[in-house]
Amino acid sequence: MATVLAVGSVAYDTIETPTARRERQLGGSASYFAVAATPVVSVRIVGAVGEDFRQADLDLLRDRGADVEGIARRPGRTFHWAGRYHDDLIERDTLATELGVFADFAPEVPASWRDTPYLFLGNIHPALQLRVLEQMRRPRLVVTDTMNFWIAGQRAALRSVLARSDVLLVNDSEARQLSGRRGLAEAAAAIQALGPALVVVKKGEHGAILFGRTGLLAVPAVLLPSVVDPTGAGDAFAGGFLAHLAAAGADSGSDDTPFRVAMLHATAVASFCPQGFSVEGLLAADPPARAARLAQLRAMMTP
Amino acid sequence: MATVLAVGSVAYDTIETPTARRERQLGGSASYFAVAATPVVSVRIVGAVGEDFRQADLDLLRDRGADVEGIARRPGRTFHWAGRYHDDLIERDTLATELGVFADFAPEVPASWRDTPYLFLGNIHPALQLRVLEQMRRPRLVVTDTMNFWIAGQRAALRSVLARSDVLLVNDSEARQLSGRRGLAEAAAAIQALGPALVVVKKGEHGAILFGRTGLLAVPAVLLPSVVDPTGAGDAFAGGFLAHLAAAGADSGSDDTPFRVAMLHATAVASFCPQGFSVEGLLAADPPARAARLAQLRAMMTP
Repeated sequence: MATVLAVGSVAYDTIETPTARRERQLGGSASYFAVAATPVVSVRIVGAVGEDFRQADLDLLRDRGADVEGIARRPGRTFHWAGRYHDDLIERDTLATELGVFADFAPEVPASWRDTPYLFLGNIHPALQLRVLEQMRRPRLVVTDTMNFWIAGQRAALRSVLARSDVLLVNDSEARQLSGRRGLAEAAAAIQALGPALVVVKKGEHGAILFGRTGLLAVPAVLLPSVVDPTGAGDAFAGGFLAHLAAAGADSGSDDTPFRVAMLHATAVASFCPQGFSVEGLLAADPPARAARLAQLRAMMTP
Repeated sequence: MATVLAVGSVAYDTIETPTARRERQLGGSASYFAVAATPVVSVRIVGAVGEDFRQADLDLLRDRGADVEGIARRPGRTFHWAGRYHDDLIERDTLATELGVFADFAPEVPASWRDTPYLFLGNIHPALQLRVLEQMRRPRLVVTDTMNFWIAGQRAALRSVLARSDVLLVNDSEARQLSGRRGLAEAAAAIQALGPALVVVKKGEHGAILFGRTGLLAVPAVLLPSVVDPTGAGDAFAGGFLAHLAAAGADSGSDDTPFRVAMLHATAVASFCPQGFSVEGLLAADPPARAARLAQLRAMMTP
């Protein structure tokens, strides 16, 4: 089985929706990524948690097929984010961000993991993403996520990361912010000029667009009858995306074909995430359910 | 050549964008519909204009292949809408709505036109749409447009129109308003229960979704390098949609296939509309340009 290394947050989230509230549920980019990717590939997680982190949550990730030896337990509290979703279950307000042990997180890739062929750089400080890149030995494929906060405040470090990335995942407003261009095709081209040969622009309920070397692919989102908790869907998308690429043996020199197919897997897997709190929606989706959703997505795209 | 009858506004629009201003340019739902549809089918327009309406604009529609004998010239002024687009060229403010002769427009379908097989009911008062339906002799296919204003204020008349429509075209917020459902698939199903076997939900720059009898099709919008004036794109979409269906000989008993293909034609044709003021973008798109854009759209949808 192919192996992917994921660096990112392992966190506790307190989530309020119009109808429910969940306190300190398992969250964080590396958690969502790993649960989305693990049935297909094995995932090595590099992260940090505090003394309050529950053994049951480590067990959940391990039982799923993730290697959690790279999750350092440190004195202090686990990174905690609290947010409240609006009625549309899209807009949200941040109620609290307590960095805890994440405040001085300095990722350390275990020596035996440094030749992992596939690397996911979750949305953390670009200087830390760079630190991980420097520890790795020539990964076959580097997929990077980032956010508006780093684009605004850490542009130089982010550019160094982009220069060494094969794929950048961003949402539409981040693509515009990073490039200074309004049109998404022009924004993607400007980002490609900074390094990544491929740019994926995520648009939430409106789907995602891959800008590749030789063309683009627009994939709609699966229409869901109801949304429980949309937190983590972007990271689950990344997990489905890189899992397919790793399973297919793609690398930075591949043509666009495996990346186009990976967009479908990413969208199909991510669609389970909002159907439950925390990683529950993803955990409930067994391989037949995933295959059915992939077929549903293909039918939605076929005239 | 197949023939389509279109009922709607023939108007003058004063448009302000962040970089330009155009005064009293040709607009209105029937105009955009006709210019989009006419290279493929012939269009009979039923509408009304005032004494100020320029002969050159009638000539433009006629030269394009539209039959304008159903456009009544009445004492008074042509319907005039003025709007200002925001920087994103999506949001807009209405600056003026002067109904003019449109205030007491009562569509009268010429006797020789009443057996036209394909009918487009543009976005006018549902009572007037109903009046047209009552004048027609069993059209093969009825495609209906409406808007938030009629959904809020003329629900009973609108329901009578929907009961006799095969396809309803609405945008996403209108679909939610009409159905009272947030999920688009649930909203479309609720609308289908009111009459139309097919519902097209338009999402602007995010594309459009067809909800058919046996499945759905999501079509992305073509990505444009720049937008000049987005006015009329929805009516151009309707023109491209119904033109393909009429050319293909579809009727209310057809399976979903021609409607799915019509979504591509509609999207490809509509994409030219925002590239110029008034109907200029549509006029500039010759058949090879349309075919190239259709191919571009198919490539965007093919993994």
